Amino acid sequence: MQNTLSASVLLIGNELLSGSIQDQNLSYIAIKLEEKGIRVRETRIIPDIEDEIVNAINELRTKFDYVFTTGGIGPTHDDITSDSIAKAFGVPNVIQDDVFNLIQGYLNNKGLEFTPAAQRMAYAPQGSEIMPVTDSIIPGYRIQNVFVMAGVPRVMKIMLNSIIEKLETGHTVLSESVHANVSEGEFAAALESIQLQYPEIDIGSYPQDINSTISEYRVVFVIRGTEKGQIKKVRELILDACNTAGHDAVYIPK
Amino acid sequence: MQNTLSASVLLIGNELLSGSIQDQNLSYIAIKLEEKGIRVRETRIIPDIEDEIVNAINELRTKFDYVFTTGGIGPTHDDITSDSIAKAFGVPNVIQDDVFNLIQGYLNNKGLEFTPAAQRMAYAPQGSEIMPVTDSIIPGYRIQNVFVMAGVPRVMKIMLNSIIEKLETGHTVLSESVHANVSEGEFAAALESIQLQYPEIDIGSYPQDINSTISEYRVVFVIRGTEKGQIKKVRELILDACNTAGHDAVYIPK
Repeated sequence: MQNTLSASVLLIGNELLSGSIQDQNLSYIAIKLEEKGIRVRETRIIPDIEDEIVNAINELRTKFDYVFTTGGIGPTHDDITSDSIAKAFGVPNVIQDDVFNLIQGYLNNKGLEFTPAAQRMAYAPQGSEIMPVTDSIIPGYRIQNVFVMAGVPRVMKIMLNSIIEKLETGHTVLSESVHANVSEGEFAAALESIQLQYPEIDIGSYPQDINSTISEYRVVFVIRGTEKGQIKKVRELILDACNTAGHDAVYIPK
Repeated sequence: MQNTLSASVLLIGNELLSGSIQDQNLSYIAIKLEEKGIRVRETRIIPDIEDEIVNAINELRTKFDYVFTTGGIGPTHDDITSDSIAKAFGVPNVIQDDVFNLIQGYLNNKGLEFTPAAQRMAYAPQGSEIMPVTDSIIPGYRIQNVFVMAGVPRVMKIMLNSIIEKLETGHTVLSESVHANVSEGEFAAALESIQLQYPEIDIGSYPQDINSTISEYRVVFVIRGTEKGQIKKVRELILDACNTAGHDAVYIPK
């Protein structure tokens, strides 16, 4: 796809790996970024282990235009994201006075003690740029092309929206879908020939379970790209090919 | 954690990266494996691109005891998992006669044509062991420590249950949770001291949104390990520490 930027999402947390908590952030991040022309090209979920975080950050930040992390920036012993990212960049994890004062004021208002553990939330790797947020007390931060966000979905969303406003963006990724009662095997050759005609468009074919909540049709074709005219043309070619072969197919606008 | 095996899950598919389809497999896989003493230590989601699949497979299969893949084994142009895994292992992707006959019989019964595209589903990397399944027409397969499954959740579940029966397993990972109305920052030091006493137990601290569907309490502590007695002891220590500090806390059995 032309004129897009690439991103990786790194979800940090044992709870996501063990299945005890279901991720709620990934699809929100991907959809928000695609609106800005930034495509998520790889996602990783890793545990709260320093070496794993350091290695993943260093691999992903050289491979993609942007890296977005979630999780591990709270006050407890399993929150080691900032320390690990500092290590990945080879810089110290240092106190951020503005953030320190912000948290202190917030806790004082609530009559809560500003413990050494809570003070760890005021640290970020040297050279970080703190992301201003109004609704959340602890802001995320950016270091070079890595954006560090909370894991709690409500807070993550506020941080991401603050980040996105300032990012360099690409062409919005658009998508349309055609739902069809075809056999994937019988339709595969026709679909591939359409794909070959439009290499800049991604055509995905997704067979549906009988109990699918996505579609009552047997297959959903998702057409994605940055050029609206090309997407429309591909949609029409798929519908024509289905109809010619006598299969029921429909374009369902969003 | 003692006496457990490690696993990685590799979800293959553009649709999961773009957020257009929400993953439904990951937490099912993680929970099923933990019952068998196999812990998911890393998950990746990557696009339908050969080099990406080859590199991820070769990295993960040396790093973990087992690798489980989902997606990309259907008949359409974007289904390139088997070709890519064959390449990762440096072997040809070859026809599996039993699978060929199975699919052919199924399609004949339905009056559908067994197209060259559909025939691709009867291929697996040379040296693979086909996983027997009764409810699904296309079985998954194993090559060395890599297990290859479909992406459609209903089919994936059948395949996984067939695989698990034959796997070498470890000690079941058990977990309990304590829900508490504490401030994470104020409680962090007490929690860390408990964690240090029980290094074989994983203690996670998860703050909850106001609208959380997981708990009405402010924080959920998840205690995980393979020794039931240790888990119970940690649970009691957390409850005691909360109560001593005057915080409302409760153990909620599953």
